[in-house]
Amino acid sequence: MIDRLESLSIRTSAREEIVNITEQVQRVTGASGVRSGMVWVYSPHTTSGITIQENADPDVRVDLLGHLAELVPRKASFRHAEGNSDAHIKSALVGASQAVPIADARLLLGTWQAIFFCEFDGPRSRRVMVKVLGT
Amino acid sequence: MIDRLESLSIRTSAREEIVNITEQVQRVTGASGVRSGMVWVYSPHTTSGITIQENADPDVRVDLLGHLAELVPRKASFRHAEGNSDAHIKSALVGASQAVPIADARLLLGTWQAIFFCEFDGPRSRRVMVKVLGT
Amino acid sequence: MIDRLESLSIRTSAREEIVNITEQVQRVTGASGVRSGMVWVYSPHTTSGITIQENADPDVRVDLLGHLAELVPRKASFRHAEGNSDAHIKSALVGASQAVPIADARLLLGTWQAIFFCEFDGPRSRRVMVKVLGT
Repeated sequence: MIDRLESLSIRTSAREEIVNITEQVQRVTGASGVRSGMVWVYSPHTTSGITIQENADPDVRVDLLGHLAELVPRKASFRHAEGNSDAHIKSALVGASQAVPIADARLLLGTWQAIFFCEFDGPRSRRVMVKVLGT
Repeated sequence: MIDRLESLSIRTSAREEIVNITEQVQRVTGASGVRSGMVWVYSPHTTSGITIQENADPDVRVDLLGHLAELVPRKASFRHAEGNSDAHIKSALVGASQAVPIADARLLLGTWQAIFFCEFDGPRSRRVMVKVLGT
Repeated sequence: MIDRLESLSIRTSAREEIVNITEQVQRVTGASGVRSGMVWVYSPHTTSGITIQENADPDVRVDLLGHLAELVPRKASFRHAEGNSDAHIKSALVGASQAVPIADARLLLGTWQAIFFCEFDGPRSRRVMVKVLGT
C-alpha cells in the first residue's frame, strides 16, 4: 500500500474566498503512484473548510459565500472576543475535510465537481494536507 | 488489501427527496469480501449530497428537507442563472460523501442510522460511488 | 496494514453540549501501533455529530451551539413526534464523522484544532467509534 502525505500552501486574498485546489490535489495524487484508492483533503485550520462544488459558473461560489454570510452573520452578540465566531461556525458547517475516490490515478470527481478551499477569516497564509492511500 | 469501487444508479422522482440507499451500500460491501475496513459513499454531483440519518420515522426526513428549504430558500437574488443555487448550497452543507466503518462484513451503522442520498435538484438520474477498502 | 476499531463511552450532561474527545482518540491511535495512516471518528447516533473546532477559547463552542440553536430552533411545526427534529437536522449539518491524518503516530491536527463530540439531544450515554487504518 502506498501512503503519501503532502502539504499545499495557499495565500488567500480576502476575508471570505473560495479557492480551487483541484489541480494541486490531482498533482499530489498522480505523483504518489497510487492508481486506485482514496485521497483526503484536510484543512488544519478552524476558520476555513474544504468543499466540493461546481466549477463551471463562478456565480455558484458567489451565491454560496453570500448565503453563508446571511446564515451566519458577524453578530455583535457572539462571545468569542476575536470577532470571528462566524468563521468558526461556517467551518463547522462546511467541514474540515473531503474524501475523494481515486481510479486510474485520477480523482473520481463528477463532471462539474472541483475541490475548493473555503477561506472564512482571511486574508491569510493557509496550509492544506493531502493524504493519499491506495495501490 | 481489498479495494472495490462500484457505482449505484438512482432515479429520483421529485425536486427534493431523500432516498435510503443503505441496502445497496451493504450489498456492495458484502460482495467485496471485506470483513474489516471502511466504506465511502460518494456523490459525484453538485446539487445532491449524502447524509446519515434516522430511518425509523419518515417524518425526520420531511422535517430535514423542510427546514433545509427554510434555511436556503430559492432566492430571486441568487446570481447563478440556472436558478438552483439553493441546491448547490444545500449540497455544501450536507456534504458530498459519508464514511462508515465495516466490521464482520457489515456496515457499522447505529441502531437508528441509515445512509441517504439527498436530491436537491431533481427529478434526475443520479449515480453514487461506493468505495470499499479493507481486508 | 494495521486496522483497529475501538469504542469510546461518553456521558453527556446537558441537552446540547460539545465534548472534547481528542485525548481519547489520540490514545486509541497511539495504542494501535499505526505511525502513518488515517483515523475516523464516527458517531453511530442520529441526534449528535462530530466536529473539529478550536479548543483554545471555550466561547467558540458557546457561539457554535448558540448559533446552531438559532438556525435550527425547536419548532412546533416539526412533524416528527419525538420533538427532537432540531437535533436530527443539526446532526445532518455537522456530520456523523470526521477524518484526520496520522503522522509519526500522532493526529495531524492543526495548532488550534481539537475533535469534539456534539450532543444535540442529551443528556445521554453515547458511544463513538474510532477506526484507525495505516502502517
